[in-house]
Amino acid sequence: MSDALLERTLKLTLEYDGTAYAGWQLQAAVPTIQLRVEEALIRMTGERPILAVAGRTDAGVHAEGQVASFRTKSRIEARRFVPGLNSLLPRDISVSAVQEMPLAFDARHDSLSKRYRYRVLANRHRRALEERYAWHVRKPLDIAAMREAALHFVGEHDFNAFRSTDCDAPHARRHMIAVDIEVVPRPSLGEIVEIHFHANAYCRYMCRILAGTLVEVGEGIRTPKNVAEVLESRDRRLAGVTAPPHGLTLMQVFYP
Amino acid sequence: MSDALLERTLKLTLEYDGTAYAGWQLQAAVPTIQLRVEEALIRMTGERPILAVAGRTDAGVHAEGQVASFRTKSRIEARRFVPGLNSLLPRDISVSAVQEMPLAFDARHDSLSKRYRYRVLANRHRRALEERYAWHVRKPLDIAAMREAALHFVGEHDFNAFRSTDCDAPHARRHMIAVDIEVVPRPSLGEIVEIHFHANAYCRYMCRILAGTLVEVGEGIRTPKNVAEVLESRDRRLAGVTAPPHGLTLMQVFYP
Repeated sequence: MSDALLERTLKLTLEYDGTAYAGWQLQAAVPTIQLRVEEALIRMTGERPILAVAGRTDAGVHAEGQVASFRTKSRIEARRFVPGLNSLLPRDISVSAVQEMPLAFDARHDSLSKRYRYRVLANRHRRALEERYAWHVRKPLDIAAMREAALHFVGEHDFNAFRSTDCDAPHARRHMIAVDIEVVPRPSLGEIVEIHFHANAYCRYMCRILAGTLVEVGEGIRTPKNVAEVLESRDRRLAGVTAPPHGLTLMQVFYP
Repeated sequence: MSDALLERTLKLTLEYDGTAYAGWQLQAAVPTIQLRVEEALIRMTGERPILAVAGRTDAGVHAEGQVASFRTKSRIEARRFVPGLNSLLPRDISVSAVQEMPLAFDARHDSLSKRYRYRVLANRHRRALEERYAWHVRKPLDIAAMREAALHFVGEHDFNAFRSTDCDAPHARRHMIAVDIEVVPRPSLGEIVEIHFHANAYCRYMCRILAGTLVEVGEGIRTPKNVAEVLESRDRRLAGVTAPPHGLTLMQVFYP
């Protein structure tokens, strides 16, 4: 039996600061997370991997718990990939864990659900230390109204009103497991509002349009009842702004 | 009476990410926080200000609540300085507050005490999202031992063992009001240990040498009892390493 036949599948858990990158996915002539991870894997294994990824994060979006998988004929032990890749990757990308998986495992198709966090700095003035990781809005936010509006998203719905018009998914039916809104006390930083989304899957820009719409509720521009109507309408033109990417972080991906 | 005689003193509260700067203080040919704040004030007032500052932070050190003061003949209202300066300063420096003070107020000489925070990521592997704001150490830390060692610093002591050999202060007697060590739960990020220092004043590199020494206690390299002996010795060669600057943040300055 030849070694060349012994293929295995590895699962990577990745953390990154998306500020410097044009998102996850490979694109010509711009740096992406996928490109940097592939380069590091080529150096470790000598093979060009075909990476499956749980969340194709947009340009500027961060991740604490992104998951990718690939098949390899390399015989390097899984646990040795972590320090190896961390020494090869740029400082704004790191690997938290590498696990051996059944050969058929696919980080994208096998994921059951994903958690995203959207951070908002609600403060009259900008704050230098929140510049990279929070969307700055100037008005105070009505958290109770935001929570009431967010309840309309929970359950299985057609989220067509809350996806990019050039989203290529065949439909927008998604199961939103929970939307939690927390106020993080930071006396010297103004108020940080965290919106936590947990859904089985997401359409393009869905978290950012949901966050933008919830912030409009918080600012008093629209009511929780209006949000229910927008969801029902399936009309993107009726939903709120697409919140900027730098407030968004992919937190965790769940598998069976 | 001429307007030219009407001098007033303003107090600025500043936040910054120190990553890109050679510290607070003006230096030839390198960008500093002081330079950027002066440039913004010159554009607003037409005058070159003489800035007094509470903490002359080192290169790479951050601030959430730095305080500076200056005298001006400008008649611009204090509250109008905040949005004005924030529109002129780079994104990694912001002004949180500007207040009118008695003419004699001096941000440096009038400060009663200052709080600094030192952040440590104690985790086997590095984490991309902690790269800018935490010192990465690979061993788990014994928090109880660190807390026991930190108690020796509380009170009035000669901190000569814990200052840079080229510190230019005439002596190293300082009053340490409190040292608190907190473990911040971050499941997906490993353990973040925050060391909070509160003292009337600090010598050069004092927070960083204290943090470096406490981390050596946490790693089991030295005992709490040894820390008491080092303090007593007044000998810099017996203390621990100078922890890197990017873990340190000036949190708050107290005035009468």
